[in-house]
Amino acid sequence: MRRAYDEELAALHRQFSQMGNMVNEAIYKSIKAFVKHDKELAKQVIEEDAKINQLEHDIEQACVELIALQQPVTADLRKIVTILKSSADLERMGDHAVSISKSTIRVKGNKRNDAIEAKISKAGEKIKTMGNDILDAFIGYDDELAREIASRDVQIDEITNDIKNDCVEEMKKDPELVLGATDYMLTSSYIERIGDYVTNISEWIVYFRTGKIQELNTHHEYDDID
Amino acid sequence: MRRAYDEELAALHRQFSQMGNMVNEAIYKSIKAFVKHDKELAKQVIEEDAKINQLEHDIEQACVELIALQQPVTADLRKIVTILKSSADLERMGDHAVSISKSTIRVKGNKRNDAIEAKISKAGEKIKTMGNDILDAFIGYDDELAREIASRDVQIDEITNDIKNDCVEEMKKDPELVLGATDYMLTSSYIERIGDYVTNISEWIVYFRTGKIQELNTHHEYDDID
Repeated sequence: MRRAYDEELAALHRQFSQMGNMVNEAIYKSIKAFVKHDKELAKQVIEEDAKINQLEHDIEQACVELIALQQPVTADLRKIVTILKSSADLERMGDHAVSISKSTIRVKGNKRNDAIEAKISKAGEKIKTMGNDILDAFIGYDDELAREIASRDVQIDEITNDIKNDCVEEMKKDPELVLGATDYMLTSSYIERIGDYVTNISEWIVYFRTGKIQELNTHHEYDDID
Repeated sequence: MRRAYDEELAALHRQFSQMGNMVNEAIYKSIKAFVKHDKELAKQVIEEDAKINQLEHDIEQACVELIALQQPVTADLRKIVTILKSSADLERMGDHAVSISKSTIRVKGNKRNDAIEAKISKAGEKIKTMGNDILDAFIGYDDELAREIASRDVQIDEITNDIKNDCVEEMKKDPELVLGATDYMLTSSYIERIGDYVTNISEWIVYFRTGKIQELNTHHEYDDID
């Protein structure tokens, strides 16, 4: 009984990692497509999102079945709850990769701005690394790494805020840039949200280790008031 | 034993409703503050968000403890899972009310556009009603109402897309409007996301009733490609 149970838990853990890898690939591809103006790659991200959503549902069902059939307590229960809650964060990271891809497809000869695109690319690199690292933290249930990753979210907020300010300045100077800069702003807000979801997953990894539900970043509540 | 358990479940249900009411009030106030340019009211929303976050943590802890101590199955387990998952959606709806409030506080004599503000106000009315109704659907575990509420999300997407297009047109015509219209666009994207979270809660209410995890709206994956 315990052996079958351990195998089911391990299978759930693998499914979650697989979903995480798919989401990270979607983020990577969506930003690459945006920066390279590659509509085919963007379409691919949109098409593959259905698989991510299906996997989320499978994981959620498996979590509930494991709880119902095995009635886990302590660490096992926390492991399942961590996966049950974090799966929604992964799924929404995937949704934002889709939103970025839609921006890429929407572009029809808009005027572009290389400096802003370079900043988006940089923010994309950072968020990609955070996405990969959070999966490592999950696989190793490494709460120290999770805390460190969450602390990087300030940098994402800084860059995306900076991009927003650049867009405002450039749009004021050049009306032809309005349409393109609108997508720059939205894309950068998607990247910012992905950072928030990574932070949420960090919090669940810390919960698994400590049994305490706590917020790791409260800074982003006030960061863009000024 | 069963009686204490029923009382704990009922208490959890009340806590969730309370959190839902707080979130709906935050959304209502944030949009009112945005439209009336009321910075004091906006500050109040930001300050009160900490209570919502705390309540979310309390609810999550209570869910895990109930599962561990009572080892619920079937409908009781689904009830707890519905609350465990939906609490994150409520919390993020509250976060977006905070983001809208931050836009309100940021405004410093920006040029404004009455027609666009009227549309934001209309979108805000609709999302407020959806927020109230989803709480009714939750309290009555009414999956028919939940499905109907989810179907309204298309209208939110239409209005917010319309607002975005208006902003682009007005910014092209008038550089002085760029700063204000940027906040219009972001606020309307927050309203759009709140609609997505309401849809997620609808899906969990349907899950409670049917035991099946399914997506109610897939339209918004593709709605703004064109």
